[in-house]
Amino acid sequence: MSMPDTPVHDRLSGRADPHAVMHGEIGKRKTVVMKFGGTSVGTIERIRNVAKRVKAEHDRGRRVAVVVSAMAGVTNRMVGYCAELDPLADPKEYDAVVAAGEQVTSGLVSIALQALGVKARSFQGWQIPLVTDDAHGKAAIESVDGAALLACLDDGIVPVVAGFQGVGPDGRIATLGRGGSDTSAVAVAAAINADQCDIYTDVDGIYTTDPRIVKRAKKLDRITYEEMLELASVGAKVLQTRSVGLAMRENVRVRVLSSFAETDDDSGSIVVDEDEIMEKELVAGIANSHDEAKISVRNIPDRPGIAAAIFDPLAAANINVDMIVQSVGVDNMTNMTFTVSKADEAAARSVLEKAREYVQYGELLTSHSVVKISVVGIGMRSNAGLAARMFRTLADRGINVQVISTSEIKISVLIDSEYTELAMRALHTAYGLDAKEEADA
Amino acid sequence: MSMPDTPVHDRLSGRADPHAVMHGEIGKRKTVVMKFGGTSVGTIERIRNVAKRVKAEHDRGRRVAVVVSAMAGVTNRMVGYCAELDPLADPKEYDAVVAAGEQVTSGLVSIALQALGVKARSFQGWQIPLVTDDAHGKAAIESVDGAALLACLDDGIVPVVAGFQGVGPDGRIATLGRGGSDTSAVAVAAAINADQCDIYTDVDGIYTTDPRIVKRAKKLDRITYEEMLELASVGAKVLQTRSVGLAMRENVRVRVLSSFAETDDDSGSIVVDEDEIMEKELVAGIANSHDEAKISVRNIPDRPGIAAAIFDPLAAANINVDMIVQSVGVDNMTNMTFTVSKADEAAARSVLEKAREYVQYGELLTSHSVVKISVVGIGMRSNAGLAARMFRTLADRGINVQVISTSEIKISVLIDSEYTELAMRALHTAYGLDAKEEADA
Repeated sequence: MSMPDTPVHDRLSGRADPHAVMHGEIGKRKTVVMKFGGTSVGTIERIRNVAKRVKAEHDRGRRVAVVVSAMAGVTNRMVGYCAELDPLADPKEYDAVVAAGEQVTSGLVSIALQALGVKARSFQGWQIPLVTDDAHGKAAIESVDGAALLACLDDGIVPVVAGFQGVGPDGRIATLGRGGSDTSAVAVAAAINADQCDIYTDVDGIYTTDPRIVKRAKKLDRITYEEMLELASVGAKVLQTRSVGLAMRENVRVRVLSSFAETDDDSGSIVVDEDEIMEKELVAGIANSHDEAKISVRNIPDRPGIAAAIFDPLAAANINVDMIVQSVGVDNMTNMTFTVSKADEAAARSVLEKAREYVQYGELLTSHSVVKISVVGIGMRSNAGLAARMFRTLADRGINVQVISTSEIKISVLIDSEYTELAMRALHTAYGLDAKEEADA
Repeated sequence: MSMPDTPVHDRLSGRADPHAVMHGEIGKRKTVVMKFGGTSVGTIERIRNVAKRVKAEHDRGRRVAVVVSAMAGVTNRMVGYCAELDPLADPKEYDAVVAAGEQVTSGLVSIALQALGVKARSFQGWQIPLVTDDAHGKAAIESVDGAALLACLDDGIVPVVAGFQGVGPDGRIATLGRGGSDTSAVAVAAAINADQCDIYTDVDGIYTTDPRIVKRAKKLDRITYEEMLELASVGAKVLQTRSVGLAMRENVRVRVLSSFAETDDDSGSIVVDEDEIMEKELVAGIANSHDEAKISVRNIPDRPGIAAAIFDPLAAANINVDMIVQSVGVDNMTNMTFTVSKADEAAARSVLEKAREYVQYGELLTSHSVVKISVVGIGMRSNAGLAARMFRTLADRGINVQVISTSEIKISVLIDSEYTELAMRALHTAYGLDAKEEADA
C-alpha cells in the first residue's frame, strides 16, 4: 500500500517534537498504550527488554500505560492443570487459576521498570476496576474505569496492567478468553483516551497475506478497521477479532509492531479509521482458513422449507453455518452444501443423521480437504470488477470454486485445499499486492 | 506425654457422633479449618488427595474451610524472578508476583473438590477481605471479615482460601512473609469461630525434639500455646511463631498432622490452652538453633555505662541481641559476651569496630561454632530444680555452658556446636522424654 508524501498520522503525531501540535491541542503530551504478548515477556531477559522499550517511550515525554500477557507457556500450563483435574472445570475457578499468569507478569514488568529508574505500578483487573460480564472464561468487557490509571500517568507513574483479566459482577476474577490481552489493551486505551495502542508482538506488522505462503507478501503501513476485522475473522492471526471490533467502536488507533526489532513511529502497521487513509487501496489482503469442514446434503426432494429443515436443527445445536450454496440436480432433486468449523463437524453430522427421515435426503457427504480463501478490501464496496477478477484468476489456473460467500468488503471462496498456495499467490499478484523488491529480484 | 482416660478434647469434639453436644450447644456442627502446605499441594495428584481429605471431613457433616499454600517450588521460583530483576524489588510488586502462587492453588483445589461433587469456591485475600497493614512482603493481619466465608459454609460450600496473602490499606495485594499461610489459617479460623484449625504438613505432629538428632523423640499429643511459642522461636520449625502467637491470642485450637498418612481425630499434635491439658508434663520439648553467632568484647576497663556503650549502637543498627553474659577478668577488666543471629554478625562487627575507641576494649572475638539448646516447659514456672537438672546433665558430659538465658518457661544455653547431638540426647533422657517403644528396643 503506497503512502502519500505526508501521511496523516505523522502530521498528527508530531514525530519531530513530541510536544508539538496534536489533535488540535497545544502542548498536549501523547498518551500511548504499549501491549506485550506472551513471547515478548517469555523470559526475565525479555522482560528487561520490554522495560527498556517502555523507558524509551517514557523518556520521550510520552504518557505510557503498559498491558501485558502471561509469560509464554504459563497460560497453557495453567489450562493443563485445570483440565487434568476436571475437563469441565468451573469457569470461575479456571479464571482464578489462569489469571495468575498475567498477575505475575504485571509485577515483574513493574519491578524491571523500577530497576531502570522508571516509576511503575502493577494493576490487576479488579484494582482498576476493569469490569466484565459474568461469562467466566470468555467474558466481555463492560467498563474500564480510567481514573486510577490516569492518576498514575499524571504522577509520572507507568501503570502496568495485567491483560486478559477483569472482575465480574460477582466480584470474582474473570478472563476474556484466548487473545484477550489485545482486547484489554484496546479497552485500556479507550478508557484513558490514549492517542494510540501499540501491540508489540512476534511479527513486525500486518501483511497483505501469509508470508509463509506468499513470499511477495507486503507489510501494510495502514489498514482500516473494517478490513482488519474481516481479515482477522477469516484467518489472519495477528490481532484478535474482538480487539479490532472494540478498537473500531471506540475509535482507538491500533498499531501492530515487533517487540524484537528496533522500532520507531513509522514501524509496523496501523489500524485506523477509513478517513485517516488518504490513498485507499482497493484490496488490503488475502487470507486463508483451514478451519472449514464442507458438508453436502444430497438428493433432497425439492419442496418449500428444505433449508429450514436442515438449518434449524443445526442452529438449535448451537452450530454456526458459514458458507451455503444450493444446487439443483437431476429429477428435480436439490443439493445443499455448506461449511461449519471443523470442531463442529461431528456434532453437525449427528444432527443431520437424526433429521434424515424428515428431510428425506439421499446422501450425506463431508469433506475436510477444503480451504476458504478470502479477498478483503474496502474497494469491494464500489468496484464490482474485483469479484470477477477473483473468479477469472482462479479459473485461469483450473481451480474449481465450490462455494462462494460475500460481505460488503470481502469475497470468500471454498476450494480444494491442494490449491491453497497456487490460489493465494495468483490472487496476490492479480490484485497488485506483490512487494516491489521481491518482484524486481 | 501421657493422657487421662477421657481427654478433654475428645469429650468436647464428640468423635463418636459429630452432631453430639459440643461447646455446650446441642446440634451445633463442628467447624474446622484445614490448611495444606506447599508439599501437600505440590502436584495435581496431591491436590486430588487433598480434595479427598476435605471431602471426607465434609461428608462427616463438618463445616470445612480450606487454606492453601502455593504448590511446592512455585514461591521460590517467583522470588527468584523478582530477585533476578532487582534484589531490592518493590515489596508491593513482589507481593503481586508471589501471591499468584496461592491464587493458583486455591482455584485448583476448588476444581478438585467440585470434581468430587463437593461445592467449593476460591477466595483471594482481597475477596474476603483479609486486611493487612502496609508492611508489604511481611505484612501483619489487621482483620478478617468472616461474613463471606460463613455465608459459604451456611450454603454447604467449602471456601478455599489462598493463604499467605491479603489486601493492604492501599488496596494492593500484601503477603505475610514466609510461613504466612499458617497465620492465614489461624486468622481464618478465628474469623469464622472454628472449633479447630488443622495444619496438614509433611510431618505427623510436634515432637519433643528433632527426631533426626534424637531417635527417641516422642510425638506430643498436646502442647500449650506458650510452650509451642517458645519452641517455635528457638528452632522447632513445624509451626511459624506468628501463627502460634495469633492462635494463643484468639484462642484457636491448632492441630498439626500429616497430609500423607491416614489420620483421624486423634492424629497429630494439638496446641491448646493450658487449661485444656489435665495432666501436665513439666517439660514439653528440647530445641536447638544454629542461627547464633557469639561475639565477645574482651578486656574492657570496668566503669558504669559499659553495657549501654556496647548495646546502644547495636540497637541503633537494628541488630537484635539475644543471650548476654558479663564476666570479670583480671585487673578489674570486664568481658561482655552475647549472641546475634548469623545474618547480623558482619553488621555487628562493623558497629563494634567503630565503637572501639569509645568503649576502649582490648579484643573483639566472634565464633560460629556454637549452638543454642533450649528446654521448654510450663513446669519451669514452678519447679526450680528443672534448671539445675539441665546444668548437671551437661556438666556430667563435660559440656561447658558459655552463656545462659531464661524466660518464664524456657532455659537456653549456648554450647560448643560439636556437642549438639550429645547434649540433646542426654537432656531428652534426663527430662524423661524418651519414647517408650524406642527405650524397650
